[in-house]
Amino acid sequence: MSRWAPNARERLETAALDLFVENGYEETTVAQIADRAGMNRATFFRHFADKREVLFGGEDVLAGLFADAVRAAPPGATLTECLQAALAAAGGAMTPQLRAAAVRRIAVVAANSELQERGLLKHARVTTSVTGALRERGTDELTARLGAEMCTLAFSVAFERWMKADDGAPFAPFADAALTDLQARAAELVLPSAYSGQTPSSA
Amino acid sequence: MSRWAPNARERLETAALDLFVENGYEETTVAQIADRAGMNRATFFRHFADKREVLFGGEDVLAGLFADAVRAAPPGATLTECLQAALAAAGGAMTPQLRAAAVRRIAVVAANSELQERGLLKHARVTTSVTGALRERGTDELTARLGAEMCTLAFSVAFERWMKADDGAPFAPFADAALTDLQARAAELVLPSAYSGQTPSSA
Repeated sequence: MSRWAPNARERLETAALDLFVENGYEETTVAQIADRAGMNRATFFRHFADKREVLFGGEDVLAGLFADAVRAAPPGATLTECLQAALAAAGGAMTPQLRAAAVRRIAVVAANSELQERGLLKHARVTTSVTGALRERGTDELTARLGAEMCTLAFSVAFERWMKADDGAPFAPFADAALTDLQARAAELVLPSAYSGQTPSSA
Repeated sequence: MSRWAPNARERLETAALDLFVENGYEETTVAQIADRAGMNRATFFRHFADKREVLFGGEDVLAGLFADAVRAAPPGATLTECLQAALAAAGGAMTPQLRAAAVRRIAVVAANSELQERGLLKHARVTTSVTGALRERGTDELTARLGAEMCTLAFSVAFERWMKADDGAPFAPFADAALTDLQARAAELVLPSAYSGQTPSSA
């Protein structure tokens, strides 16, 4: 029951997911989650603002990984290189354990519109985090916003494909492929005048 | 008190916004909104699923306008032409009345995280709606998702700029400029190989 329990966040997340799958999200109380994790209710609320948050700790981690990687990219890095760095940093967090938990989490979230809303809020915060990190590098506002949308879209596409892949597949190749695939599509959106007058070939 | 009151949705939206500004969102009940609009609570719930929804009818309209315009674009229209058509269709709905209500709505939403979440959900649904309309035209999935993100981002940028402009300014030039500005930035995201081997000039 100590507030200094090691891995308290992870234990609460696992306990919550277990209970949501067993009994349903609505039916599970914060007290039950804390109890299953061997903690008390107050400890839960030191780590998570409400019951919904316990499912979205991963998005907070992702927002931090993306932003740190963008900030750490070399001063002369292009926008694309910044996004590659962000996605590469995320790759390290995409473990087989996370993948197994994600399968269960997706089912819980899909069944509850409140959880879908929280998920969208978290997704938006990840995008905002990347936008902010790009702005700190001196990227202009519109480029930063577009680049951040591209980053989170590439991550989403990579994640969806990775979830369908075999157990144990590393995430990095999926991230690389998703970004490259989206970059190929972006050609259809570019102004021809941005290319020294040459019309893009159809992509 | 008739369920067939003319403009019932609009009257409920106006009454709700008035009360939210006067007394706060949390403090206002659905019964009070209905009463102010000269209707009853049951009529409110025929038009809106919950209290939050009354603030986001505009996003539902927008999702429909975007999708209809994309579907109605000529068969040979490029992705960019589809997005231009979508934004042009939205322009018709961006009246001075809407702008005046938006100023008040933005203040109400900014003060409440539940409302921000609902706003993000609606924003995501607009994007999904455009994605779906592009898919119906035969656009491949990734191009459709990227194009839809570009469409809603262009709309957001145009909307922010329009809100800062003088009263009575038409929306259409802001939409055109936002899309063009974003297209110029997209050049930084394109794979050089998509351009017959020519490296993009720096944008």
